[in-house]
Amino acid sequence: MNELITKIEDYIDRHQDDAVHLLRQMVQQPSIQGNEKGVQEVVINKLEKLNLKTDVWDPDIEELKKHLYFVPSRTSYKGSPNVVGVWKGQGGGKSIILNGHIDVVPEGDRLSWTHDPFSGHVENGKMFGRGTTDMKGGNVSMLLAMEALINCGIKLKGDVIFQSVIEEESGGVGTLATLIRGYTADAALVPEPTNMKLFIKQQGSMWFRVTVEGRSAHGGTRYEGISALEKAVKVHQAILDLEKRRNEIISDPLYKSIPIPLPINIGKIHGGNWPSSVPDLVTLEGRIGVGPEESMNEVKNELRQCLAQVSSQDTWLKDHPASFEFFGGQWVPNGLEQDHPFAKLVSSHYQELVNKPITIEASPWGTDAGLLGKVGGIPALVIGPGETRVAHYPNEFIDLSTMILASKLFARTILDWCEVSSN
Amino acid sequence: MNELITKIEDYIDRHQDDAVHLLRQMVQQPSIQGNEKGVQEVVINKLEKLNLKTDVWDPDIEELKKHLYFVPSRTSYKGSPNVVGVWKGQGGGKSIILNGHIDVVPEGDRLSWTHDPFSGHVENGKMFGRGTTDMKGGNVSMLLAMEALINCGIKLKGDVIFQSVIEEESGGVGTLATLIRGYTADAALVPEPTNMKLFIKQQGSMWFRVTVEGRSAHGGTRYEGISALEKAVKVHQAILDLEKRRNEIISDPLYKSIPIPLPINIGKIHGGNWPSSVPDLVTLEGRIGVGPEESMNEVKNELRQCLAQVSSQDTWLKDHPASFEFFGGQWVPNGLEQDHPFAKLVSSHYQELVNKPITIEASPWGTDAGLLGKVGGIPALVIGPGETRVAHYPNEFIDLSTMILASKLFARTILDWCEVSSN
Repeated sequence: MNELITKIEDYIDRHQDDAVHLLRQMVQQPSIQGNEKGVQEVVINKLEKLNLKTDVWDPDIEELKKHLYFVPSRTSYKGSPNVVGVWKGQGGGKSIILNGHIDVVPEGDRLSWTHDPFSGHVENGKMFGRGTTDMKGGNVSMLLAMEALINCGIKLKGDVIFQSVIEEESGGVGTLATLIRGYTADAALVPEPTNMKLFIKQQGSMWFRVTVEGRSAHGGTRYEGISALEKAVKVHQAILDLEKRRNEIISDPLYKSIPIPLPINIGKIHGGNWPSSVPDLVTLEGRIGVGPEESMNEVKNELRQCLAQVSSQDTWLKDHPASFEFFGGQWVPNGLEQDHPFAKLVSSHYQELVNKPITIEASPWGTDAGLLGKVGGIPALVIGPGETRVAHYPNEFIDLSTMILASKLFARTILDWCEVSSN
Repeated sequence: MNELITKIEDYIDRHQDDAVHLLRQMVQQPSIQGNEKGVQEVVINKLEKLNLKTDVWDPDIEELKKHLYFVPSRTSYKGSPNVVGVWKGQGGGKSIILNGHIDVVPEGDRLSWTHDPFSGHVENGKMFGRGTTDMKGGNVSMLLAMEALINCGIKLKGDVIFQSVIEEESGGVGTLATLIRGYTADAALVPEPTNMKLFIKQQGSMWFRVTVEGRSAHGGTRYEGISALEKAVKVHQAILDLEKRRNEIISDPLYKSIPIPLPINIGKIHGGNWPSSVPDLVTLEGRIGVGPEESMNEVKNELRQCLAQVSSQDTWLKDHPASFEFFGGQWVPNGLEQDHPFAKLVSSHYQELVNKPITIEASPWGTDAGLLGKVGGIPALVIGPGETRVAHYPNEFIDLSTMILASKLFARTILDWCEVSSN
């Protein structure tokens, strides 16, 4: 086995430049929402070179609509293909899904970038660009691991199912579509940017919108109106109090160093339309974190109760209660115990590879591991080579040697989990 | 004198229908900002029929810019004429300005109106429509008063200067332009909608914008950011406290029944751009009332100090203080004492006309009387036939008999103030 690993890792080391070239090709395709086709062609090309059976399809919104966990992020997914490549095993082994999203968030203000965000500029062992870290680099790690195993002539018992999915940044429609299409496995790896920490739990989240009514009046006689802003301030405080209550009861040691394990963020406020009129409508938009052990519905109910309570305690809100809805993004939480065989396997290979114990954490955000785990019932772990802190930021980068290290870890993991076949 | 008054009032009574017709013509010209030309042509036509010397000009922004009290409401006033009609006196008497703005605020949601807001629909002695009350009805009262005096063959010692001005709703550029052009008089009447109460003092106001900075972060790790909204809530509270302090010290009996004599209204709030990001910028826009005895600069300084204080008391705001600016609308306050000869004259004529004492109040909003009084040094009073409570609202209306009553009061006032000439 050790000899085999040496051979595989030697292959990976010798093909570093190819991997960097592949990553650059992928980064040069700006796969923001609705524009994923170009990069998927790069992926398909790579999968075909590995002689994998590829499955390419545009998720069908009518199919998706039938699913309980579908939250529409657009009106159609036409022209935004999902890509799956299956390396069929010889049978008798455990299968694995390698899941990486191919969509990237917009680059934002170009002036904040030192280099063109879609050039794949390399400097001092780092590649810069939108999507390098989140998470095309992780996808390349997986592809290189598969390539090494295949080109070293290995045959596995279990299937390896590589998934290049769309729409993770908007809630996971791409991964949901793979589940609807029937893809499943005995375990899943999602190499989101974790700095090679093992995120065994991931926080889910939901977006919500609260609407607070007032009554308009001229600013000069504002006492004749009711300021929706003053009422919204009360609602805002009630939400902060709810956040406090929700976090006080968290005892999981994984969260002990995190100031607010399950934050409720109010990210947007908008109200009123004239400086000298009393604002009669204020909307707040936010994101509520969902714990790995919580259900989306439980959390929806807590927020519902919180708003009902604050409304019942105010003379005006009693008759004009703050209303709310969930909309847009929704990320399902996920969690695996540390002693789950798949978690133990990944942890021990990491220890062997770098000669120090793996860091285990809970992520403050959701990933497609939530859908794979909670909805697909697949034990799913998140670990990847990207730099957590630069995801979604200007000058996003990935350390290329970490990408190679991740590739070695993934190769060992696949080899061990799916087992070498003697057939 | 009594005989003359009877003759004039008889004229007014006989020409009620003409006045209603004139008002309807004026209301049918939707003179929202930038669209005043049509209604001004109706006014010019009327003034020409009265054989008055008319002066029509588009206020020149370059001229205006040189004036301390100019607050630009647009980049040009081309195509938005001011109209002044002068009824020259025989000499030796006191002059009067009759000032009414011709601009109206937008009609808003048409579905909230029972009738077309620009039709001038009459029902049960009321005319409905945008601008009926605020303040084309008041302008018609003045025009009918002048017409009655002229057509009854009266000659006055003092000049009567009728002004149909633009831009009052945006801060008074039209009236400022009349001052710059040299128009002045010994007194001024401004028939804004007061329900025939005499507003001897008018609250001024200024618009301001406060900007509160935060630091962005992902909502899932919101403790790494600083919510500009949480800081803006502090600033909002400090502004409410300032309002309380400013109003506690008001002792003028005119304000004794008013809950908040000098309100500070926060009319707009806007902040953040993504539900799951910590908002890094929140802006508040509002209107601060300026008392009749206050200067604009004093009030600016109070707000400046308030914001400096709240910023100094917060660890984050100390280094990122809330910034602010004054922008857009600005209405100069105004005040006349009850025993001013002009106020006494109007009051006594009202008493004679309706057989009950006039109600004297302070208005909660500014009018062009502020510019006439504080800037032009002209003793200016506000009294008019419009319904205060429906100004700026859907289904705005004016009671037509009150418009006629106002016309009689104005005719008596002009006659007495400017004096009949025996020449």
